Amino acid sequence: MSFAASVLTLYPEMFPGALGLSLAGRALEAGTWSLEAIQIRDFATDRHRTVDDTPAGGGAGMVMRADVLARAIDHASPHGDPRPRLLMSPRGKPLTQARVRELAAGPGAVILCGRFEGVDQRLIEVRELEEVSIGDFILSGGEPAALVLLDAVVRLLPGVMGNAVSGEEESFEHGLLEHPHYTRPQEFEGRQIPEVLISGNHKKIAEWRRAEAQKLTRERRPDLWAAGHPLAK
Amino acid sequence: MSFAASVLTLYPEMFPGALGLSLAGRALEAGTWSLEAIQIRDFATDRHRTVDDTPAGGGAGMVMRADVLARAIDHASPHGDPRPRLLMSPRGKPLTQARVRELAAGPGAVILCGRFEGVDQRLIEVRELEEVSIGDFILSGGEPAALVLLDAVVRLLPGVMGNAVSGEEESFEHGLLEHPHYTRPQEFEGRQIPEVLISGNHKKIAEWRRAEAQKLTRERRPDLWAAGHPLAK
Repeated sequence: MSFAASVLTLYPEMFPGALGLSLAGRALEAGTWSLEAIQIRDFATDRHRTVDDTPAGGGAGMVMRADVLARAIDHASPHGDPRPRLLMSPRGKPLTQARVRELAAGPGAVILCGRFEGVDQRLIEVRELEEVSIGDFILSGGEPAALVLLDAVVRLLPGVMGNAVSGEEESFEHGLLEHPHYTRPQEFEGRQIPEVLISGNHKKIAEWRRAEAQKLTRERRPDLWAAGHPLAK
Repeated sequence: MSFAASVLTLYPEMFPGALGLSLAGRALEAGTWSLEAIQIRDFATDRHRTVDDTPAGGGAGMVMRADVLARAIDHASPHGDPRPRLLMSPRGKPLTQARVRELAAGPGAVILCGRFEGVDQRLIEVRELEEVSIGDFILSGGEPAALVLLDAVVRLLPGVMGNAVSGEEESFEHGLLEHPHYTRPQEFEGRQIPEVLISGNHKKIAEWRRAEAQKLTRERRPDLWAAGHPLAK
């Protein structure tokens, strides 16, 4: 079974977007994963195809209606669908590479892209949506966040990256930012590649990279360093 | 002067992508911002248009060459260009709404999208790239992250959102996740909108929302709660 993504959105034409190109695009064509973009508006019942209404209690913006969204979700993900139901939202739990890996090992995901001020809370509770945040910033809607989440997941699906081991990923999963990289030319605007990297001494190279990764993590991400995976230190 | 984005990428066809639709797309057409996607490969000098090479010191993957990228950057952003030069990278400083706001108030951004294992460190130093991360996960490249960053910035440009005040944003910038939202219908699958929200008592509604936002932030984001903006408590 390939990984099946169903995205509920007011902008289905945003998909596959960047996911239709490069590695993800080739994997989509090859059937390694599938992507269905569902127009939420198709589940409205009035002739204006209304999906939102003013917030109870007053305030700015509009709120997406529980009843319309429930019909859309139930269509995309009928009873018994084993896929997790995600809601892209800055209120969510921050996405981590560990969660990305879990999702990639599963059957797929149903992803609701919020717009406007947000989604009726009763829908989140009754349909057991997992709120996922990709960061502490505000987007125009959940769509760019869904593209990011799917990109992160798809590159982990079997066969997508070939046999390439990503050093970046290994470093990151061990709680460290990655060490600096260098490649030819040997001299660039008067700067040389560090001596140790052209020494041929693999032990020294590994030590240097580890020390650089630790230094960078301490300086730039004291939060990661403090949370410290045991392998990081 | 409108906000000018120049994106350096191996996949210029990924742009504008989702940014060509909805609010960002209308603002792009209206000239509120501009977007230029530049093919890095055009700055290679060999007939295979090579942009990468094997990592000095060995290891998996490929590294983007400093000399090719420098030519691309110098073309996009000649001497005297006041725009910040960003590199989308999981090694970067995590993007915040405060940084998004700063960028939106500026002349634009030159955004380099990394691919493969990363970018030669000398390029980052010599061209003074600001490494920006959108989260602790690994993407196939910097492009989906650039789409997210630009989406966050563009919605803040004058005129893009109209006069709509985003409550979500206000709450977030004060260090709190947003309170739950409700809208019609009054009853959804046996659940009512909370009594207080239909009371008409604006003071009680404000108190309830603040208490809910505080509770959610404490439970879901102890890191934000601990970092605590003074207005959050």
